Amino acid sequence: MTTSTAVDRLKRQAQAAKAASRHLAKLTSEVKNQGLLNIADALSTREEAILAANEQDYAASKKNGLSEAMLDRLKLDPARLKAMAADVRHVASLPDPVGESFDVRTMPNGLRIGKRRVPLGVLATIYESRPNVTVDISALCLKSGNAIVLRGGKEAFNSNRVLATAVRESIADAGMPAEAVQFVESTDRSLINEMLKMRDVIDLMLPRGGTELIEFIVENATMPVLAAGYAVCHTYVDESADVKMAREIVYNAKVRRISICNALDTLLVHRAVAGEALPVIGRALAGAGIELRCEPKAMELLRPVVPDNVKAATEGDFGIEFLAPVAAVKVVESLDDALAHIERFGSGHSEAIVTRDYASANRFIDEVDAAAVYVNASTQFTDGGQFGLGAEVGISTQKFHARGPMGLREMTSYKWTIFGDGHVRP
Amino acid sequence: MTTSTAVDRLKRQAQAAKAASRHLAKLTSEVKNQGLLNIADALSTREEAILAANEQDYAASKKNGLSEAMLDRLKLDPARLKAMAADVRHVASLPDPVGESFDVRTMPNGLRIGKRRVPLGVLATIYESRPNVTVDISALCLKSGNAIVLRGGKEAFNSNRVLATAVRESIADAGMPAEAVQFVESTDRSLINEMLKMRDVIDLMLPRGGTELIEFIVENATMPVLAAGYAVCHTYVDESADVKMAREIVYNAKVRRISICNALDTLLVHRAVAGEALPVIGRALAGAGIELRCEPKAMELLRPVVPDNVKAATEGDFGIEFLAPVAAVKVVESLDDALAHIERFGSGHSEAIVTRDYASANRFIDEVDAAAVYVNASTQFTDGGQFGLGAEVGISTQKFHARGPMGLREMTSYKWTIFGDGHVRP
Repeated sequence: MTTSTAVDRLKRQAQAAKAASRHLAKLTSEVKNQGLLNIADALSTREEAILAANEQDYAASKKNGLSEAMLDRLKLDPARLKAMAADVRHVASLPDPVGESFDVRTMPNGLRIGKRRVPLGVLATIYESRPNVTVDISALCLKSGNAIVLRGGKEAFNSNRVLATAVRESIADAGMPAEAVQFVESTDRSLINEMLKMRDVIDLMLPRGGTELIEFIVENATMPVLAAGYAVCHTYVDESADVKMAREIVYNAKVRRISICNALDTLLVHRAVAGEALPVIGRALAGAGIELRCEPKAMELLRPVVPDNVKAATEGDFGIEFLAPVAAVKVVESLDDALAHIERFGSGHSEAIVTRDYASANRFIDEVDAAAVYVNASTQFTDGGQFGLGAEVGISTQKFHARGPMGLREMTSYKWTIFGDGHVRP
Repeated sequence: MTTSTAVDRLKRQAQAAKAASRHLAKLTSEVKNQGLLNIADALSTREEAILAANEQDYAASKKNGLSEAMLDRLKLDPARLKAMAADVRHVASLPDPVGESFDVRTMPNGLRIGKRRVPLGVLATIYESRPNVTVDISALCLKSGNAIVLRGGKEAFNSNRVLATAVRESIADAGMPAEAVQFVESTDRSLINEMLKMRDVIDLMLPRGGTELIEFIVENATMPVLAAGYAVCHTYVDESADVKMAREIVYNAKVRRISICNALDTLLVHRAVAGEALPVIGRALAGAGIELRCEPKAMELLRPVVPDNVKAATEGDFGIEFLAPVAAVKVVESLDDALAHIERFGSGHSEAIVTRDYASANRFIDEVDAAAVYVNASTQFTDGGQFGLGAEVGISTQKFHARGPMGLREMTSYKWTIFGDGHVRP
């Protein structure tokens, strides 16, 4: 149950963040970068305290029967702290999006009208087990001039608290307002409902966690939400594809990293090339231990080649995000058939075609409605770093505000600036 | 009460709009422009039927005691239809934002990565009395490649229906899918609740109406909302202001058009210049019949000059959008005082400073958090046409996605397009 005291405290924290955000918006890049470098240093100088708090969380979570996967996400060690510090230093090294002017023009009446990039204000994140989010999101928010309200999961409470304190004290040492980072001391779940109503002080929600949490926040938030959604990624091997290229791309899209959102889930192969391509691709995937859930036609071609790796696909195998060494495989009749399949089962994340045909490439790029649409490349490139954004706060499958990898610039808004000389409107 | 039949029908309409939106996204500018020109023509060829339907609405609304102001908004006549047609032709003449490529670069590995502008998908608008919204919003949506679900008010039902039919038939004649424009046949208010849940088929809500309606939609929609909010606009006359320029700008900001959102609500004047400037400005405003709600210091300076136009301000007179021949007036101690006042009472719409001082101009531009921030110009310039956007769908006081005047480009999203040559991620 949420006590009104807890709600009041959260409200006061968000208000303090709002006030601090005005200060933050005016800071120079130098001050902000110094704050980030201090955070990176603190992860090393405070290592002992951080690991002790994490040990406490780990032991309690283990006792409470948290799964091995969740325990692994929770765990911090000196190497992971070093990696976190390196990430923060990397964010410090990136260009500051705030203050950038763009779309500037002089109107016929002499008014100089343009846009200037400004922070959004106060962001709030609700996240689960991984304590590194406390530091990652803080660094990205602070660099982009935003204040942040951190509400982490119960299982990582002690780790998150000691990390948030380190962040607050580090930025204060650089002359930044400590109040720009607010750590919610209660992990009471019903407090989330109250948080989602605070649109007067929270400008954007950035949920990080499972599908259920994200759905809940998208449906109940009164402020905008930037959410990374469910990702079902297809690679379509066109009639004209270079088979060797198709094998390399499909293998990379599936096998390079199995459990990331841009990994291949479904392989579609044009009927005309399936007889040649599927055995080649199937052998490569089977060699990496991938289970192939095959539609009848794909089964016919793959069973003789990789009998131990095939399984009959059920309807549920299409339109699913596996995050596992499994791929659904289907032979399609045509490019149209592939496009229709992707439209029906895709989630709007990353989709690829392998083709030598100019018209097929263009149609795929034009007609597939997804955050990232590829010709002759692996979907595993969908990533802020790979796309030249430097760092990313997530990958949006929404169409509003930002789509695909979101970097620092996507954490800003703009104001119109208008310089006149006594201009009045006729 | 919402019957499940009405909900089912709305759902089917939204799904049909979604399907049509995929078709719409691929149309050339030529086809879309022809569709718009057909709409403009239909407003003239169908004038009789439109005016008859409108007469029916008008008579019923008059009988039901609708206010004069609302009746005026509802009323259509040949001149208004001509103006609507001219607006639609103007939208047809604007550049098409869809398909524009931007942020294109070749990465060090040779991948060509860029963004391509695409429609958002399906927009829905919930609007009150003005039947011209049916045509205006349809034109803007169709030009930007979006399908639209129209849910107008009860009082304009017949007008809206006949206009929506004209739009649907006009675009079909140009080879566009009629299903891209859906008119909700029920004005049952509780159907709105159901509509706000349909985020699988409606990508964006565009409410048009009173504050209460907009608040309700912002709080309850599960999809993004682009809303024009409450607008409280300040003009601050700085210590160093040119008094004649200040008079011209303040007069224009208040008097040019009284009832638009970017009209001046509060005049702030620096103490050091108030003795000279306030009488000059006060006389000009009083000459236009403006009532001046004065703080004590302003009252002291204005009462001797324009005794019939002054009134003591109450606390409620600051932070209010008058939309009437009324302005609140306050003498401030400093630029800091003015900035603090605007931060407290402003709504983030349009704010202006009149100054000759370089540092004051810069501080005002830097520190005021509003959609449009002006130096030495009237706030009445905040408008899509004036800002070079061609046409506008509204003025957003939100920071997410689009801020300030929103044109056709702000009704789009983008997809990342990645062209490779067999690229796999290391």
